Amino acid sequence: MADKVNLAAQFGRFDDHWSPKIVATLNDYDVKVVKVQGEFVWHQHDETDELFLVTAGQLRIRLQDRDDVVLGAGELFVVPRGMRHCPVADAETHVLLLEPRDTVNTGDAERTGTAGTRLD
Amino acid sequence: MADKVNLAAQFGRFDDHWSPKIVATLNDYDVKVVKVQGEFVWHQHDETDELFLVTAGQLRIRLQDRDDVVLGAGELFVVPRGMRHCPVADAETHVLLLEPRDTVNTGDAERTGTAGTRLD
Repeated sequence: MADKVNLAAQFGRFDDHWSPKIVATLNDYDVKVVKVQGEFVWHQHDETDELFLVTAGQLRIRLQDRDDVVLGAGELFVVPRGMRHCPVADAETHVLLLEPRDTVNTGDAERTGTAGTRLD
Repeated sequence: MADKVNLAAQFGRFDDHWSPKIVATLNDYDVKVVKVQGEFVWHQHDETDELFLVTAGQLRIRLQDRDDVVLGAGELFVVPRGMRHCPVADAETHVLLLEPRDTVNTGDAERTGTAGTRLD
Protein backbone atom coordinates (compact mmCIF):
# COMPACT_ATOMS: atom_id res chain seq x y z
CA MET A 1 0.00 0.00 0.00
CA ALA A 2 1.21 3.47 -0.79
CA ASP A 3 2.34 5.79 2.00
CA LYS A 4 0.96 9.21 2.75
CA VAL A 5 1.96 12.04 0.45
CA ASN A 6 3.35 15.34 1.73
CA LEU A 7 2.65 17.73 -1.13
CA ALA A 8 5.36 20.26 -0.25
CA ALA A 9 7.94 17.49 -0.06
CA GLN A 10 6.90 16.18 -3.46
CA PHE A 11 7.12 19.63 -5.02
CA GLY A 12 10.63 19.87 -3.58
CA ARG A 13 11.77 16.85 -5.56
CA PHE A 14 11.72 18.36 -9.05
CA ASP A 15 12.18 21.63 -10.87
CA ASP A 16 10.87 21.20 -14.38
CA HIS A 17 7.72 22.94 -15.58
CA TRP A 18 4.60 21.51 -17.24
CA SER A 19 5.72 17.97 -16.43
CA PRO A 20 3.21 16.33 -14.08
CA LYS A 21 4.43 13.82 -11.51
CA ILE A 22 2.07 11.10 -10.31
CA VAL A 23 2.04 11.04 -6.50
CA ALA A 24 -1.03 8.92 -5.73
CA THR A 25 -3.66 6.80 -7.40
CA LEU A 26 -7.36 6.62 -6.56
CA ASN A 27 -9.11 3.81 -8.42
CA ASP A 28 -8.33 4.58 -12.07
CA TYR A 29 -7.50 8.23 -11.40
CA ASP A 30 -4.05 9.70 -10.91
CA VAL A 31 -3.22 12.51 -8.50
CA LYS A 32 -0.40 14.54 -10.01
CA VAL A 33 1.65 17.52 -8.93
CA VAL A 34 3.06 19.95 -11.46
CA LYS A 35 5.06 23.17 -11.41
CA VAL A 36 3.98 25.61 -14.07
CA GLN A 37 5.27 28.93 -15.30
CA GLY A 38 4.54 30.79 -18.51
CA GLU A 39 1.82 29.84 -20.96
CA PHE A 40 0.85 26.31 -21.87
CA VAL A 41 -0.96 25.33 -25.07
CA TRP A 42 -4.66 25.65 -25.87
CA HIS A 43 -6.22 22.20 -25.75
CA GLN A 44 -9.24 20.23 -24.61
CA HIS A 45 -9.99 16.82 -23.19
CA ASP A 46 -13.00 15.33 -24.91
CA GLU A 47 -13.26 12.34 -22.60
CA THR A 48 -12.86 13.81 -19.14
CA ASP A 49 -13.19 16.72 -16.77
CA GLU A 50 -9.91 17.92 -15.25
CA LEU A 51 -9.41 19.21 -11.71
CA PHE A 52 -6.84 21.93 -10.88
CA LEU A 53 -6.04 22.74 -7.25
CA VAL A 54 -3.44 25.44 -6.67
CA THR A 55 -1.23 24.96 -3.59
CA ALA A 56 1.15 27.91 -4.15
CA GLY A 57 1.24 30.81 -6.58
CA GLN A 58 -1.47 31.85 -9.00
CA LEU A 59 -2.84 30.05 -12.03
CA ARG A 60 -4.93 31.69 -14.73
CA ILE A 61 -7.01 29.27 -16.78
CA ARG A 62 -8.06 30.84 -20.04
CA LEU A 63 -11.31 29.36 -21.28
CA GLN A 64 -12.90 29.53 -24.68
CA ASP A 65 -15.91 31.82 -24.81
CA ARG A 66 -15.94 32.69 -21.16
CA ASP A 67 -13.98 34.69 -18.60
CA ASP A 68 -10.67 33.42 -17.33
CA VAL A 69 -10.63 31.63 -13.99
CA VAL A 70 -7.85 32.80 -11.68
CA LEU A 71 -6.88 30.42 -8.88
CA GLY A 72 -4.78 31.27 -5.84
CA ALA A 73 -3.51 28.86 -3.20
CA GLY A 74 -6.36 26.80 -1.77
CA GLU A 75 -8.61 27.28 -4.80
CA LEU A 76 -9.73 24.63 -7.23
CA PHE A 77 -11.57 24.52 -10.52
CA VAL A 78 -12.87 21.71 -12.69
CA VAL A 79 -12.53 22.28 -16.43
CA PRO A 80 -15.45 20.44 -18.02
CA ARG A 81 -14.75 17.88 -20.70
CA GLY A 82 -14.65 19.35 -24.17
CA MET A 83 -13.90 22.89 -23.03
CA ARG A 84 -10.83 24.42 -24.64
CA HIS A 85 -8.53 25.90 -22.06
CA CYS A 86 -5.03 27.27 -21.68
CA PRO A 87 -3.28 27.47 -18.30
CA VAL A 88 -0.99 30.45 -17.71
CA ALA A 89 1.14 31.45 -14.72
CA ASP A 90 3.21 34.63 -14.51
CA ALA A 91 5.37 33.22 -11.71
CA GLU A 92 6.07 29.62 -10.77
CA THR A 93 2.92 28.03 -9.45
CA HIS A 94 2.30 24.65 -7.81
CA VAL A 95 -0.75 22.74 -8.93
CA LEU A 96 -2.35 19.46 -7.94
CA LEU A 97 -4.11 17.77 -10.85
CA LEU A 98 -6.66 15.02 -10.75
CA GLU A 99 -7.75 13.14 -13.84
CA PRO A 100 -8.19 9.62 -15.14
CA ARG A 101 -5.04 7.58 -15.67
CA ASP A 102 -3.41 8.14 -19.07
CA THR A 103 -4.91 11.60 -19.55
CA VAL A 104 -2.31 13.51 -21.55
CA ASN A 105 -1.68 17.10 -20.45
CA THR A 106 -1.91 18.55 -23.95
CA GLY A 107 -5.24 16.89 -24.73
CA ASP A 108 -6.05 17.26 -28.40
CA ALA A 109 -3.23 19.71 -29.13
CA GLU A 110 -0.72 18.58 -31.71
CA ARG A 111 2.16 19.17 -29.33
CA THR A 112 3.61 16.06 -27.72
CA GLY A 113 2.23 15.69 -24.23
CA THR A 114 2.62 13.48 -21.21
CA ALA A 115 0.28 11.64 -18.90
CA GLY A 116 2.82 12.18 -16.11
CA THR A 117 5.71 10.25 -14.68
CA ARG A 118 5.94 8.56 -11.32
CA LEU A 119 8.17 10.01 -8.61
CA ASP A 120 9.95 7.00 -7.12
CA MET B 1 -20.53 25.46 -15.55
CA ALA B 2 -19.50 25.56 -11.92
CA ASP B 3 -17.36 28.40 -10.59
CA LYS B 4 -14.02 28.06 -8.90
CA VAL B 5 -14.01 26.82 -5.32
CA ASN B 6 -12.17 28.60 -2.52
CA LEU B 7 -11.68 25.88 0.06
CA ALA B 8 -11.31 28.20 3.07
CA ALA B 9 -14.50 30.02 2.11
CA GLN B 10 -16.37 26.74 1.83
CA PHE B 11 -15.13 25.57 5.23
CA GLY B 12 -16.40 28.87 6.61
CA ARG B 13 -19.95 28.09 5.57
CA PHE B 14 -20.71 25.30 8.02
CA ASP B 15 -19.87 24.10 11.50
CA ASP B 16 -21.08 20.53 11.81
CA HIS B 17 -18.70 17.61 12.06
CA TRP B 18 -18.52 14.40 10.02
CA SER B 19 -21.01 15.82 7.50
CA PRO B 20 -19.33 16.11 4.09
CA LYS B 21 -20.35 18.94 1.76
CA ILE B 22 -20.02 18.47 -2.00
CA VAL B 23 -18.14 21.44 -3.48
CA ALA B 24 -17.22 20.18 -6.94
CA THR B 25 -17.78 17.28 -9.30
CA LEU B 26 -15.24 15.64 -11.59
CA ASN B 27 -16.85 13.16 -13.96
CA ASP B 28 -18.65 10.75 -11.61
CA TYR B 29 -16.55 11.72 -8.59
CA ASP B 30 -17.47 14.23 -5.90
CA VAL B 31 -15.04 16.57 -4.19
CA LYS B 32 -16.23 17.09 -0.63
CA VAL B 33 -15.10 19.16 2.32
CA VAL B 34 -15.69 18.00 5.86
CA LYS B 35 -14.87 19.21 9.35
CA VAL B 36 -14.02 16.41 11.73
CA GLN B 37 -13.35 16.17 15.44
CA GLY B 38 -13.35 13.16 17.72
CA GLU B 39 -13.50 9.57 16.56
CA PHE B 40 -15.57 8.34 13.63
CA VAL B 41 -16.68 4.73 13.17
CA TRP B 42 -14.64 1.80 11.87
CA HIS B 43 -15.78 0.98 8.35
CA GLN B 44 -14.60 0.06 4.90
CA HIS B 45 -15.56 0.77 1.31
CA ASP B 46 -15.53 -2.42 -0.71
CA GLU B 47 -16.08 -0.71 -4.05
CA THR B 48 -13.69 2.21 -3.99
CA ASP B 49 -10.50 3.80 -2.76
CA GLU B 50 -10.98 7.01 -0.76
CA LEU B 51 -8.72 10.07 -0.82
CA PHE B 52 -8.19 12.25 2.27
CA LEU B 53 -6.35 15.59 1.95
CA VAL B 54 -5.96 17.60 5.15
CA THR B 55 -6.06 21.38 4.71
CA ALA B 56 -5.95 22.37 8.41
CA GLY B 57 -5.40 20.46 11.63
CA GLN B 58 -4.33 16.85 11.99
CA LEU B 59 -6.12 13.66 11.06
CA ARG B 60 -5.19 10.21 12.30
CA ILE B 61 -6.45 7.39 10.13
CA ARG B 62 -6.45 4.14 12.06
CA LEU B 63 -6.02 1.17 9.75
CA GLN B 64 -6.65 -2.48 10.36
CA ASP B 65 -3.46 -4.52 10.69
CA ARG B 66 -1.10 -1.66 9.98
CA ASP B 67 0.23 1.49 11.59
CA ASP B 68 -1.92 4.59 11.79
CA VAL B 69 -1.39 7.26 9.14
CA VAL B 70 -1.21 10.78 10.58
CA LEU B 71 -1.89 13.61 8.15
CA GLY B 72 -1.11 17.28 8.72
CA ALA B 73 -2.07 20.19 6.48
CA GLY B 74 -0.91 19.59 2.92
CA GLU B 75 -0.75 15.81 3.31
CA LEU B 76 -2.93 13.24 1.59
CA PHE B 77 -3.53 9.53 1.81
CA VAL B 78 -5.56 7.10 -0.23
CA VAL B 79 -7.28 4.36 1.79
CA PRO B 80 -7.45 1.34 -0.52
CA ARG B 81 -10.79 -0.27 -1.17
CA GLY B 82 -11.67 -2.96 1.32
CA MET B 83 -9.35 -1.68 4.06
CA ARG B 84 -11.04 -1.06 7.38
CA HIS B 85 -10.24 2.37 8.73
CA CYS B 86 -11.33 4.81 11.40
CA PRO B 87 -10.57 8.55 11.15
CA VAL B 88 -9.82 10.37 14.40
CA ALA B 89 -8.99 14.01 15.13
CA ASP B 90 -8.17 15.39 18.58
CA ALA B 91 -8.96 18.96 17.50
CA GLU B 92 -11.16 20.21 14.68
CA THR B 93 -9.58 19.32 11.37
CA HIS B 94 -10.50 20.29 7.81
CA VAL B 95 -10.39 17.54 5.21
CA LEU B 96 -10.97 17.39 1.47
CA LEU B 97 -12.40 14.05 0.36
CA LEU B 98 -12.52 12.62 -3.10
CA GLU B 99 -14.55 9.55 -3.94
CA PRO B 100 -17.13 8.35 -6.44
CA ARG B 101 -20.57 9.92 -6.27
CA ASP B 102 -22.90 8.27 -3.75
CA THR B 103 -20.08 6.88 -1.61
CA VAL B 104 -21.46 6.89 1.92
CA ASN B 105 -19.07 8.05 4.63
CA THR B 106 -19.78 5.15 6.97
CA GLY B 107 -19.17 2.51 4.31
CA ASP B 108 -20.27 -0.90 5.57
CA ALA B 109 -20.82 0.25 9.17
CA GLU B 110 -24.31 -0.18 10.49
CA ARG B 111 -24.52 3.45 11.49
CA THR B 112 -26.52 5.68 9.18
CA GLY B 113 -24.19 7.56 6.89
CA THR B 114 -24.30 10.22 4.23
CA ALA B 115 -22.87 10.63 0.76
CA GLY B 116 -22.68 14.37 1.41
CA THR B 117 -24.93 17.32 0.81
CA ARG B 118 -24.45 20.15 -1.64
CA LEU B 119 -23.56 23.62 -0.40
CA ASP B 120 -25.80 25.97 -2.38
